[in-house]
Amino acid sequence: MIKGDQYKQRIAKLKNNIHMGGKIVDRFDPRLMGGVNIMAATYDFAFNPEFKEVGVATSHLTGEKINRFCHIHQGVEDLLNKQKMTRFYSQEVGGCIQRCMGIDALNGISITSYDADQKYGTRYYRNFIEFMKRVQKEDLSLNCAQTDVKGNRPWRPGQQKDPDLYLRVVEKKKDGIIVNGAKAHNSCSVYVDEIVAIPTRFMKQDEVDWAVAFAVPSDWEGVTIINAAYAPPKRADLHCPYETFGISHSITVFDHVFVPWERVFLCGEADLAGKLALLFALYHRHSYTGCKAALSEIYTGATALAAEYNGIDTAQHVRHKLADMIQVVDLIFAAGIAAAMNAVKTPSGTYVPDSNYCNSGRMLAGEAIYGEYEALAAIAGGLAATLPGEADFENEKTGAYLKKYIMRDPKIPAEHQHRAFRLFQDMMASVWGGHKLIDALHGGGSPVIEKVALYRDHDLERSKNIAKKLAGIPFEGSTQDIKRRPPWL
Amino acid sequence: MIKGDQYKQRIAKLKNNIHMGGKIVDRFDPRLMGGVNIMAATYDFAFNPEFKEVGVATSHLTGEKINRFCHIHQGVEDLLNKQKMTRFYSQEVGGCIQRCMGIDALNGISITSYDADQKYGTRYYRNFIEFMKRVQKEDLSLNCAQTDVKGNRPWRPGQQKDPDLYLRVVEKKKDGIIVNGAKAHNSCSVYVDEIVAIPTRFMKQDEVDWAVAFAVPSDWEGVTIINAAYAPPKRADLHCPYETFGISHSITVFDHVFVPWERVFLCGEADLAGKLALLFALYHRHSYTGCKAALSEIYTGATALAAEYNGIDTAQHVRHKLADMIQVVDLIFAAGIAAAMNAVKTPSGTYVPDSNYCNSGRMLAGEAIYGEYEALAAIAGGLAATLPGEADFENEKTGAYLKKYIMRDPKIPAEHQHRAFRLFQDMMASVWGGHKLIDALHGGGSPVIEKVALYRDHDLERSKNIAKKLAGIPFEGSTQDIKRRPPWL
Amino acid sequence: MIKGDQYKQRIAKLKNNIHMGGKIVDRFDPRLMGGVNIMAATYDFAFNPEFKEVGVATSHLTGEKINRFCHIHQGVEDLLNKQKMTRFYSQEVGGCIQRCMGIDALNGISITSYDADQKYGTRYYRNFIEFMKRVQKEDLSLNCAQTDVKGNRPWRPGQQKDPDLYLRVVEKKKDGIIVNGAKAHNSCSVYVDEIVAIPTRFMKQDEVDWAVAFAVPSDWEGVTIINAAYAPPKRADLHCPYETFGISHSITVFDHVFVPWERVFLCGEADLAGKLALLFALYHRHSYTGCKAALSEIYTGATALAAEYNGIDTAQHVRHKLADMIQVVDLIFAAGIAAAMNAVKTPSGTYVPDSNYCNSGRMLAGEAIYGEYEALAAIAGGLAATLPGEADFENEKTGAYLKKYIMRDPKIPAEHQHRAFRLFQDMMASVWGGHKLIDALHGGGSPVIEKVALYRDHDLERSKNIAKKLAGIPFEGSTQDIKRRPPWL
Amino acid sequence: MIKGDQYKQRIAKLKNNIHMGGKIVDRFDPRLMGGVNIMAATYDFAFNPEFKEVGVATSHLTGEKINRFCHIHQGVEDLLNKQKMTRFYSQEVGGCIQRCMGIDALNGISITSYDADQKYGTRYYRNFIEFMKRVQKEDLSLNCAQTDVKGNRPWRPGQQKDPDLYLRVVEKKKDGIIVNGAKAHNSCSVYVDEIVAIPTRFMKQDEVDWAVAFAVPSDWEGVTIINAAYAPPKRADLHCPYETFGISHSITVFDHVFVPWERVFLCGEADLAGKLALLFALYHRHSYTGCKAALSEIYTGATALAAEYNGIDTAQHVRHKLADMIQVVDLIFAAGIAAAMNAVKTPSGTYVPDSNYCNSGRMLAGEAIYGEYEALAAIAGGLAATLPGEADFENEKTGAYLKKYIMRDPKIPAEHQHRAFRLFQDMMASVWGGHKLIDALHGGGSPVIEKVALYRDHDLERSKNIAKKLAGIPFEGSTQDIKRRPPWL
Repeated sequence: MIKGDQYKQRIAKLKNNIHMGGKIVDRFDPRLMGGVNIMAATYDFAFNPEFKEVGVATSHLTGEKINRFCHIHQGVEDLLNKQKMTRFYSQEVGGCIQRCMGIDALNGISITSYDADQKYGTRYYRNFIEFMKRVQKEDLSLNCAQTDVKGNRPWRPGQQKDPDLYLRVVEKKKDGIIVNGAKAHNSCSVYVDEIVAIPTRFMKQDEVDWAVAFAVPSDWEGVTIINAAYAPPKRADLHCPYETFGISHSITVFDHVFVPWERVFLCGEADLAGKLALLFALYHRHSYTGCKAALSEIYTGATALAAEYNGIDTAQHVRHKLADMIQVVDLIFAAGIAAAMNAVKTPSGTYVPDSNYCNSGRMLAGEAIYGEYEALAAIAGGLAATLPGEADFENEKTGAYLKKYIMRDPKIPAEHQHRAFRLFQDMMASVWGGHKLIDALHGGGSPVIEKVALYRDHDLERSKNIAKKLAGIPFEGSTQDIKRRPPWL
Repeated sequence: MIKGDQYKQRIAKLKNNIHMGGKIVDRFDPRLMGGVNIMAATYDFAFNPEFKEVGVATSHLTGEKINRFCHIHQGVEDLLNKQKMTRFYSQEVGGCIQRCMGIDALNGISITSYDADQKYGTRYYRNFIEFMKRVQKEDLSLNCAQTDVKGNRPWRPGQQKDPDLYLRVVEKKKDGIIVNGAKAHNSCSVYVDEIVAIPTRFMKQDEVDWAVAFAVPSDWEGVTIINAAYAPPKRADLHCPYETFGISHSITVFDHVFVPWERVFLCGEADLAGKLALLFALYHRHSYTGCKAALSEIYTGATALAAEYNGIDTAQHVRHKLADMIQVVDLIFAAGIAAAMNAVKTPSGTYVPDSNYCNSGRMLAGEAIYGEYEALAAIAGGLAATLPGEADFENEKTGAYLKKYIMRDPKIPAEHQHRAFRLFQDMMASVWGGHKLIDALHGGGSPVIEKVALYRDHDLERSKNIAKKLAGIPFEGSTQDIKRRPPWL
Repeated sequence: MIKGDQYKQRIAKLKNNIHMGGKIVDRFDPRLMGGVNIMAATYDFAFNPEFKEVGVATSHLTGEKINRFCHIHQGVEDLLNKQKMTRFYSQEVGGCIQRCMGIDALNGISITSYDADQKYGTRYYRNFIEFMKRVQKEDLSLNCAQTDVKGNRPWRPGQQKDPDLYLRVVEKKKDGIIVNGAKAHNSCSVYVDEIVAIPTRFMKQDEVDWAVAFAVPSDWEGVTIINAAYAPPKRADLHCPYETFGISHSITVFDHVFVPWERVFLCGEADLAGKLALLFALYHRHSYTGCKAALSEIYTGATALAAEYNGIDTAQHVRHKLADMIQVVDLIFAAGIAAAMNAVKTPSGTYVPDSNYCNSGRMLAGEAIYGEYEALAAIAGGLAATLPGEADFENEKTGAYLKKYIMRDPKIPAEHQHRAFRLFQDMMASVWGGHKLIDALHGGGSPVIEKVALYRDHDLERSKNIAKKLAGIPFEGSTQDIKRRPPWL
Repeated sequence: MIKGDQYKQRIAKLKNNIHMGGKIVDRFDPRLMGGVNIMAATYDFAFNPEFKEVGVATSHLTGEKINRFCHIHQGVEDLLNKQKMTRFYSQEVGGCIQRCMGIDALNGISITSYDADQKYGTRYYRNFIEFMKRVQKEDLSLNCAQTDVKGNRPWRPGQQKDPDLYLRVVEKKKDGIIVNGAKAHNSCSVYVDEIVAIPTRFMKQDEVDWAVAFAVPSDWEGVTIINAAYAPPKRADLHCPYETFGISHSITVFDHVFVPWERVFLCGEADLAGKLALLFALYHRHSYTGCKAALSEIYTGATALAAEYNGIDTAQHVRHKLADMIQVVDLIFAAGIAAAMNAVKTPSGTYVPDSNYCNSGRMLAGEAIYGEYEALAAIAGGLAATLPGEADFENEKTGAYLKKYIMRDPKIPAEHQHRAFRLFQDMMASVWGGHKLIDALHGGGSPVIEKVALYRDHDLERSKNIAKKLAGIPFEGSTQDIKRRPPWL
């Protein structure tokens, strides 16, 4: 395990392949630092006694203590701890903890690479294990490049006018493969050690070129990262932790990139492409039951603070609204607990959380964000939008006016009032806040995708049998078994 | 453990103290049989190998195998099994399994009677243990009489013009107490062995007369049950399991009832009245995460069946709607799992599930029923309301017409179509179905009460601390500890 | 204009072609009287000075004063008055006023029969005008038989195994046509003078046999009505207006029915079948902005009454809930006003209300009913479900108990409390109440159908143009014209 | 009537009393130009033949043609035209048309100043008429300063530690009054000719100092505007109309401002303070039924465009979602039509729209914005958040990548795709978009305030009477009269 500073020193050595605002920027561009700070925090938290129980795991490969973000889940407890870690850390950094993409991709690959070796005699799992050992030893940060740019949505990969609209293998060579394409909405690519690329959907038997998974360093030859960085507004004087965080999303272009075979985890086994896509999504949705519970609680806490500062915290409708928000926090987190409790062990030894619990929790989280935003806006009031700039509070003339006129409960100092409403403004009426409302909907899978998954994975025949039995209509099968028959087994 | 028949034989011996429709009726009045059948099923299920894992427990008092409905929860596993049992059984009987009130009341009393003995030197816990042994040995069925009629809502018990509007102790004697009052919405009283009465709210120090808990046989001297029975419509020919079920709710009047001291579990310890009220409610809400998951799944299964029979099961909006219903089933059940996983052990040894998880799940269930009803109505179509009577299907002339004109997919026989829509009609357009929509909202505690509980039990200061920390506002306490500080410890 | 008694005397002469519960019944069967009473009320209301402004119209055919239910809308004012009349009357009878189907069908036919005569040289409009004169002179009550039983939903009429699953012309004769088939969910057929049959959907050019519209007396040779009647429970002693109302829905079978040409309004003009289907639906949805506003207000009033009687009418969450209910009432009614204000005149002279306003209002009404039911259940409390029977209030022993224990605010007599909760029970926990929740969703067109209509009739290209203009993307057409281009012109 | 250029020349002459970002800025600061452009457009639109019917009115004072924004409503038609104008203009400028505050305040004052003169013999109405003539002749732009900063919310004006937390009269002089205080969320103050100040709430008889209304030029001695400006991001190359718009909100400080008597419209008549507050709010909510219908349609159009460009515009769930959005547009606008149709004439001759229709429409609009944002985010997909910067599309290397990888339907040029998603990003993931979600909730009155108004103004006794009548409970009053008894008469 390394610390945040060591991580920063390591990524400082990466080559400059990041484009932003029309220019090449380095990894410590101020706009990127919010994300870098969070990533560094995931290293430091593991040394923080407060988080020891959740943040550190024991490698099943080496028996060493490792950062849990480098761990392959060996049981229900691991899944519960990962969820808890994700929630705790996310509360500290005001939202997305960012490093979960790596752990979620690795756990998925641990299963499909094993399957491939068993079924096709490939050596992906051996590649994976070697890769994993290095990940754990060097405490690497990784992201996952899954979402292809996808071109015209109704067309499949091979039907696009430009076959590169899904990332694909363009050449297989003796020592490796050449891939071409681009991945979108690729969070954190600019400050991770390695990028893990995996398929975005099920592939048919004639779509082998698009069934590819691999890992490369984030500054690898041919990789160009076109980045968009998001962060709460910087403060001039009223400094606070919230301003130190941020995130990056990129279109990551793979322009005829060479990947050595030992870094390849899938290449042409079309039947496993969808399984890997689904497994990553599943692990990631389980992670969301942690981070989204945290995000929902941040909104809940901010709303409760707004109620207190506005002097309306005893109003019944405010308490009811807060209760509704608490319910969401609890249901999201409960879904993750239930998913872990109903996890199954795959042949590779890796545990997979239950699909429907993950999807039901993630879907709730994705849709709830709008109500949370509305609640905060409703209870904070218009000042969250109309708060004058920080400098106006510093200006001699206007500062005096603002400190006089921002006063509510005389027991709460003007500066605290200012700090609170500045936070609300940053959370909502900012580029950061606006982006968050899209990110929270789509990150980890949009609700419409979760509906598809919920419908697909629930045993609806059994549900119908219950109705048939009550109605006296003959049926085949059971009314009782509520265990899912997961497609990943 | 006894069987359903033995239970029936036992209640056959009870004295006739039931009034219904202006007359005294016995316990096998046809209108009561729906509930009696379900209660009997809880006895038989325990012998059914399919349910053995969940339906049978080992008494911590005697080491004997007992029906789980007579068990005091000794650990997390017990709570998980009770939840699962409740769901499985409820699926079989088309809804409420009815016997959970007893187990939930007993678990609550196990805690407060212990506390009372410790704090006040009473002998309630000893009374309780002796009572429990008999419950387990004789496999008694019990209900819980909690909700007082309450008079004018804004007034407290002592402020009512008539002090009996909350059940109270009117005299303490050497060998027992005299109580007077009435309990409303008292489900299953007419076919249980024993009625367990407990307080309905917190009591102040000057409200000792209303702080009373005890158990009496359901035909005890002075107890008058004014009952309302509900059941799906009986069929003339098209018999099915659904028609065999039902439920009863009564106003149970205690007219100067004498209760021997050995049957008293609380009498005057005002500070424990609210705790007992709350504990029963909590256990009962945990039970609801089982039965309401079942009820939601019954609606889901019926809706899926309607979609199939109408030939619209591939329509995207139908699948999305079913996915929403599946989500509700999973979130309700997940809340119960999480509540069990976060249970705490009380000094009495009894385990208590987490409050907020129980409340968040119950609240979801209570509010979701309307959407479930709407989904079934929307997808089944108007025929669920306008289906002609069974006899019209039997009449020579109209039967021929109806069998011709009810046909949809020719592969599904007319009788199955008829059976399905008859079920939907019984579920919705019947006294039973209408009553269910109120029952499902209020049974186990109305959503508005759960909001109060969610607000009360969540550590909102911690949530605010998270916001304060991000904003740079000083705070006291933690941002991380998500364990609830339960009021029952 | 005739009075209710005259109407009753007239339908008393109809032949017995009604089947219910396996038997033939006459038109004054007690189960039918609820509907008969409402229909009779529509005659008496027209003589009631309170309703004179809305209930009476002047015939554009004869200049005579007529019951507005026999009127063809000659302007915006007529549509506004019809909406208002529908609301006022519906408030009086506790819901559906029933006679609107006739006026809505007639207005639709006035347009398509005119179109047919213009386009195809038929004489349907002349038939219609003669029929109309008789309707107005004799003050006939009519219903509309629109919804075919439809067989397998994904198949079109001609694709069904049994072509009768949509009502069709089986033979054209010199003096008339022979039709065969059945209409479902056919409200009020048992107590109207005439049944007006129209198509249920668009027909293709090869579906001419199913493009048929006509009117026949409700006891016409070959017409068999298989009826299901719904009404609030009858009271033994606690009589009240609510118990006197009710409704009937039938499957109306046309078994090789002969219809003389002068009663035919469409026969084979496939392109006008869909237009007529749509026009009836549109008029009917406009009627719903009146009756559903009334129904929503009845639920609002009942909920407010429950709040008052329970002593919680000052609670903020209760007031907020009532405000939400008021909003629904106002939005539904506003939609109808806007639809009337944006009505267009067709070549026949008949005015048609705006489609999207009608659909947006009807869709809101259909979906809101579940929330209204929930609100009433939530605020009334469980007693609406568990209220003992009327006879238990009369029984000497239990009556005394119930009158003691139902007391809330001592200022409100026990009988009023009883009456109020009996009403709530009848509105919800009854066959009537359960059936209402399906009826209110589907009657006049289900929300899913209204979504289709809203999408179809809104000028979405114009909406997109607004976005394109802001984005600087070239576009054709306007951004401003918000007038609908209605398909019925 | 003047043109936009003349308006700009006029405000160019105003003194610099605007503070922003800690500095004094002039009225053509680039950050203010978005709002200035919209305000100028309201002048030019009146000369645009496309808007002539709605944009121009005839003064009832002079008979001259005037810009409708300077008109006092003399009938239903005026209200309908104002609503329509507001919608049409708002569609053109991508949202808030800004100038409605002035017309809404003036109409309110026309009523209360008249009342005051009648009741108290003041000369406010005469002041008002003279002021109005100048407004019309010079075609002045005005805003309305209503919302006081309000201090501690549970305390009334006189209970605050600092009495200035509500704007108040500190001295009455022979020639005028001295006022002190500040108004918050004061939109458009920086680029209007005149600021109209009115009370924010009901005042009691001992709160006369806070019952004050007047108008002063926006650069008046003692007025300091501390401003926050919002606008969509400026484009470097991809210019479009959307970037040219914007808005400003200020805290407007009145530091011992002298107001001559001829500019005073209320001073100490406490009973009229609340009436004026309410009337402005009411007119403003009626305006919102125009502008929010436009805003909802902009979101609808953008969502439909996103669906088309993503190739998913035939998916059923997309069409259903668009139908839901269309419904909202239509219901909001319908509420405004109904409010106008049910307007009443006040003694001053000014027409007032119906309260509950205005409130029901505004409440729907305020709450719907979150669903609209969610719909656009859901259907546009993550790219709305993660779209790289404009400069990356211009950079030679990354531009080529982006143009390749943004392609969807090959028929739609890359630039149009780019323009569309840039618009979506600007609408949501920007300071502008985030601020809009708060603004749309609170502007014109928050939903919680509208709930209060809906509850207050609806005749709930009549609604209860309907229920009582059905239940057979005696009642006083009517069941039928649905006219509101407005508090402003």
